Amino acid sequence: MKPVVVLNFKTYLESTGANALKLARICSEVAKSTGANIVVVPQLADLRLIASSVDIPVYAQTVEAIKPGSSTGHVLPEAVREAGASGSLLNHSECRLKLADIDASIVKLRELKMTSIVCTNNISVTRAAAALEPDFVAVEPPELIGSGVSVSKSQPEVITGSVDAVRKVSGKVGVLCGAGISTGEDFKKAVELGTGGVLLASGVVKAKDQRAALLELVKGVY
Amino acid sequence: MKPVVVLNFKTYLESTGANALKLARICSEVAKSTGANIVVVPQLADLRLIASSVDIPVYAQTVEAIKPGSSTGHVLPEAVREAGASGSLLNHSECRLKLADIDASIVKLRELKMTSIVCTNNISVTRAAAALEPDFVAVEPPELIGSGVSVSKSQPEVITGSVDAVRKVSGKVGVLCGAGISTGEDFKKAVELGTGGVLLASGVVKAKDQRAALLELVKGVY
Amino acid sequence: MKPVVVLNFKTYLESTGANALKLARICSEVAKSTGANIVVVPQLADLRLIASSVDIPVYAQTVEAIKPGSSTGHVLPEAVREAGASGSLLNHSECRLKLADIDASIVKLRELKMTSIVCTNNISVTRAAAALEPDFVAVEPPELIGSGVSVSKSQPEVITGSVDAVRKVSGKVGVLCGAGISTGEDFKKAVELGTGGVLLASGVVKAKDQRAALLELVKGVY
Amino acid sequence: MKPVVVLNFKTYLESTGANALKLARICSEVAKSTGANIVVVPQLADLRLIASSVDIPVYAQTVEAIKPGSSTGHVLPEAVREAGASGSLLNHSECRLKLADIDASIVKLRELKMTSIVCTNNISVTRAAAALEPDFVAVEPPELIGSGVSVSKSQPEVITGSVDAVRKVSGKVGVLCGAGISTGEDFKKAVELGTGGVLLASGVVKAKDQRAALLELVKGVY
Repeated sequence: MKPVVVLNFKTYLESTGANALKLARICSEVAKSTGANIVVVPQLADLRLIASSVDIPVYAQTVEAIKPGSSTGHVLPEAVREAGASGSLLNHSECRLKLADIDASIVKLRELKMTSIVCTNNISVTRAAAALEPDFVAVEPPELIGSGVSVSKSQPEVITGSVDAVRKVSGKVGVLCGAGISTGEDFKKAVELGTGGVLLASGVVKAKDQRAALLELVKGVY
Repeated sequence: MKPVVVLNFKTYLESTGANALKLARICSEVAKSTGANIVVVPQLADLRLIASSVDIPVYAQTVEAIKPGSSTGHVLPEAVREAGASGSLLNHSECRLKLADIDASIVKLRELKMTSIVCTNNISVTRAAAALEPDFVAVEPPELIGSGVSVSKSQPEVITGSVDAVRKVSGKVGVLCGAGISTGEDFKKAVELGTGGVLLASGVVKAKDQRAALLELVKGVY
Repeated sequence: MKPVVVLNFKTYLESTGANALKLARICSEVAKSTGANIVVVPQLADLRLIASSVDIPVYAQTVEAIKPGSSTGHVLPEAVREAGASGSLLNHSECRLKLADIDASIVKLRELKMTSIVCTNNISVTRAAAALEPDFVAVEPPELIGSGVSVSKSQPEVITGSVDAVRKVSGKVGVLCGAGISTGEDFKKAVELGTGGVLLASGVVKAKDQRAALLELVKGVY
Repeated sequence: MKPVVVLNFKTYLESTGANALKLARICSEVAKSTGANIVVVPQLADLRLIASSVDIPVYAQTVEAIKPGSSTGHVLPEAVREAGASGSLLNHSECRLKLADIDASIVKLRELKMTSIVCTNNISVTRAAAALEPDFVAVEPPELIGSGVSVSKSQPEVITGSVDAVRKVSGKVGVLCGAGISTGEDFKKAVELGTGGVLLASGVVKAKDQRAALLELVKGVY
């Protein structure tokens, strides 16, 4: 698989509604022009609009381990898929899930042929998440999220430790990393350390020039 | 205000995705043909599609008391409004909220000029919710939700008690009722008991003929 | 009722285990020597030990709206009462509860003849909480908690606004205030503004000399 | 290690307060008379009383991944230890925890030299929990909890599958099983399938004659 850039739109106004669509189009154009593998992760309210407007993969920020029926206000995996998502983050540090719900959500996403990325906060939790056999784990030391200090530079041992731990548990689970990622060098370093790519948000979303920031990032590898 | 029918789509497959759009169109057509005041409450993933396809009001099933920024997986009120919602349920029995979050969500919806409906489970909680001055409270005895036994027939004293309690707290807060509502008679009785309308889901969503069920309901009052 | 000092032990090590017992004894002695009305609120693990060792009232930090049976890890009101608590905080800013659970917990505490104190964060939420008719509401502007800046000095209008709001809702509900309370002057001011007393924690628990700090506080009124 | 019986007192009135102490004494006496390894897991409000009254190990029903300080209403591991607990359940089906919190709680219990038992609901979650290296995992198919239908008889493959999965992940993690366990035969079967013992509640707590029920259970192995 080509190294992936997973861009989490979070709930920034710079990536909400019309801004979300604009940013997704930038991502799509950069993916086309550079050959980069880019996934966008908008808010649920924007998911269908974006999925119907761009060719790159669109993931949900979370789904819930619920069945169709009486779950007002919750996120039904089937609804997310029908809206155009081909995958979902799970257990993001801003949306932590119970262990049994991560397991049930991975199983449900697998049934729906959707990609699952389980976010984790350290090597031990990465190993546990990998044991559930999602498509990817994405390790993000919480103290670095949104810090501007890149995990790939400042805590490379967390990345290599995670890669090693995951390999021992399963040959099928990919490893991403995140937290503080913003430059091409960060991305390159992450790939050199054995990951399949990076998960980031503010480094691009909050950049003065989102396209320039994304191009700068992508060019570290592509 | 004309008596309102608020139709909660919940997470039924019969009201998800393409089915949600179909049902919303039925609601819009029935509203037009009968003059009834109908509000649809789809899942978040379907909200924008429906809001851009029908003329009747579209509400969210919940919003969260968060500010723009780092809240991956959560429901930003601004995102919901930009997607086309003009109101939101809050504190539905399947999505109960903390007291302080109900308050903050009502304030935020008011700022965004969106309508708030706070669901409650008994007279005492109705009085508390009314003290927060949402646009509406919607009292739903939990044991009757989805039961097919109508609150307006089986527990009229909960409705009149709620109406009285709310009037003492505020002259501006409307009262709806729900739980087991499905027939025109249920709707009529609810209005006679002093409410501004009804909140329902399965009575229409799970009906063999959704249009017929909705027409039957609406004709109790319109 | 004599103005009350409700001392929340939180989960400070200075008020855990043997330290909790020591602090409760100080409170009991100060109550006796000054005639002050002091309530201690230790952690659940320390509750029975303290209740069996001192004569002043001992409250729980929270209870849960559960029935006896299958609720491993949760706080059964009946268990708390049997351990010696005569009341409980509810909805503390560090342990916010869902609206319906606050209501159910107040009802259960009333059945058990235990005192309920519902913590709130602003005038609007205070009014809502009062509508549930607990024995007390305790308004604590969250930004002042643990700040050392007293609510009674810096936001007297929140206190008087809360007192007014509660009086309109119910003649039976007392009002306390908290956040940043530490001196006798803070306590005196709170009482002058119409409250029945204060809720505090760090001002006494974290003081170098807990007894001296408590005496200084109490002497503002006693 | 001798096969263990972990008796969860849950929040049954039959195992609350004075009843809890009586039941703990029965457990202690049966342990002495039979040589069985019995652990009692009372509610937090009863923990210190029981720990100071019996010689067998006393565990908490849960702890929380919090640090000392501002966590009103929460369960500080240090407080639980000082009250006399030498271990804790984590992630019981009635008290599910977030993945990162299970990890942090295990680490904290280890620091405090307390035993950790992580409850799980299937083989996959068991494997994930084992990757966090608690002292024990306890697999309990949720549909059998409180059912009277024993997991060791009706789903032996879940037990052997869990034992196999755990051994692949770690040589240090013990496996218990639970759900529907009540007879000596259930216990014996569980041990034959490779577990280190059983976790149960209602089979003893709700028995007409708790001592007789416990003796009957224990005699399957001792």
